[in-house]
Amino acid sequence: MILARVIGNVWSTRKEESLRGLKFLVVQPVTLTYDEAGLPKLMEFGNSLVAADQIGAGEDEIVMVASGSSARQGLSNHNIPVDATIVGIIDKETFGA
Amino acid sequence: MILARVIGNVWSTRKEESLRGLKFLVVQPVTLTYDEAGLPKLMEFGNSLVAADQIGAGEDEIVMVASGSSARQGLSNHNIPVDATIVGIIDKETFGA
Amino acid sequence: MILARVIGNVWSTRKEESLRGLKFLVVQPVTLTYDEAGLPKLMEFGNSLVAADQIGAGEDEIVMVASGSSARQGLSNHNIPVDATIVGIIDKETFGA
Amino acid sequence: MILARVIGNVWSTRKEESLRGLKFLVVQPVTLTYDEAGLPKLMEFGNSLVAADQIGAGEDEIVMVASGSSARQGLSNHNIPVDATIVGIIDKETFGA
Amino acid sequence: MILARVIGNVWSTRKEESLRGLKFLVVQPVTLTYDEAGLPKLMEFGNSLVAADQIGAGEDEIVMVASGSSARQGLSNHNIPVDATIVGIIDKETFGA
Repeated sequence: MILARVIGNVWSTRKEESLRGLKFLVVQPVTLTYDEAGLPKLMEFGNSLVAADQIGAGEDEIVMVASGSSARQGLSNHNIPVDATIVGIIDKETFGA
Repeated sequence: MILARVIGNVWSTRKEESLRGLKFLVVQPVTLTYDEAGLPKLMEFGNSLVAADQIGAGEDEIVMVASGSSARQGLSNHNIPVDATIVGIIDKETFGA
Repeated sequence: MILARVIGNVWSTRKEESLRGLKFLVVQPVTLTYDEAGLPKLMEFGNSLVAADQIGAGEDEIVMVASGSSARQGLSNHNIPVDATIVGIIDKETFGA
Repeated sequence: MILARVIGNVWSTRKEESLRGLKFLVVQPVTLTYDEAGLPKLMEFGNSLVAADQIGAGEDEIVMVASGSSARQGLSNHNIPVDATIVGIIDKETFGA
Repeated sequence: MILARVIGNVWSTRKEESLRGLKFLVVQPVTLTYDEAGLPKLMEFGNSLVAADQIGAGEDEIVMVASGSSARQGLSNHNIPVDATIVGIIDKETFGA
């Protein structure tokens, strides 16, 4: 899974029927590394993407995103065209907050 | 899912039978970011790709594209060789238009 | 799907039994963009890959390649270890030829 | 599969129910190459990611990570939203340790 | 599929039970291109990865690797956590050897 920061929403009135009711968040991938003292550091990488969210992640929260066919396993209907889903919100303590 | 701008069409007379009747659009991936004032900005990245379209997206519209096996879930037949499908057209308001 | 130019063949006498009888072409990914006048332009990107071909694509033709599990959907047997298949030959008119 | 070094953990209280009980490790991809004398060398590449771990890998160990739908095959429940799983800990001798 | 050169082995005593008995080779992706005279050229790209091997590829041989769920189709058990498998050894004649 990748870690990503929630940075916005997208709305799509004209879309696949099976996607109705799902919330779509814009997320910016971040990479978690640790400095010499072992303190966690987050750094942005790559391009933002859109992920379905059933967990209720809020703006700026760091989330765990599953991609590909695995992204569909967390949804109530596994047979809908979603290839990225937020599957967890990372506890702030993980980053020493 | 990625966001992408519709930039053209491709036609393919000699193709897999199961693909007959599908429309194929050329899309250019774009990444959505927000400036300090929170205003959305779109920027192109990577290489254009071809996506099947059943929603009727038009030139220059920003669409949401599902990839991999998930791309097939939005099609009437899930067992055809398609790995990228347009699953929604993003409302213009998303970009403050 | 990606677009790619057919640039060669590979032969493999020692291979998975289920792959016998399949033709394997070397293809170079290309990206399709349009100049200010809307004229299509093709540009190479990334690294060549090997794709199974049941359509009979010829050298230098521009083809549409499906990847991942979707690549197997176009084959007579869906349960063989193929992750890239040529699923269409793009009509020359697409490039204003 | 990729090789990666275990560099940390993430905790996520608010997550998909089906992920409860799984341990999530932060891993940094590494590439294994060999110098002229044939001696193995490890070098970091790309961005860290999160992988589920059922094997009990420890900090700094080099692990083998399976991605995509294959990542789910090593789990007791194949239908959960996981796209990266640690499937082996590489013996130290592999690196001449 | 990608082409790759076999450059080494990895051993993993502590691993998923379902992986027991499988051989894991380290492979370095290579891209096949052709010079003006049409002569094939191999060039390394990207990072090495680990692939399961049931064909018996030897050091320095150029192999064809299938990835993702397709990688599992070549194995006797399709439900094991493998996302890259060697599915063919490329005949030397392909490279004018």
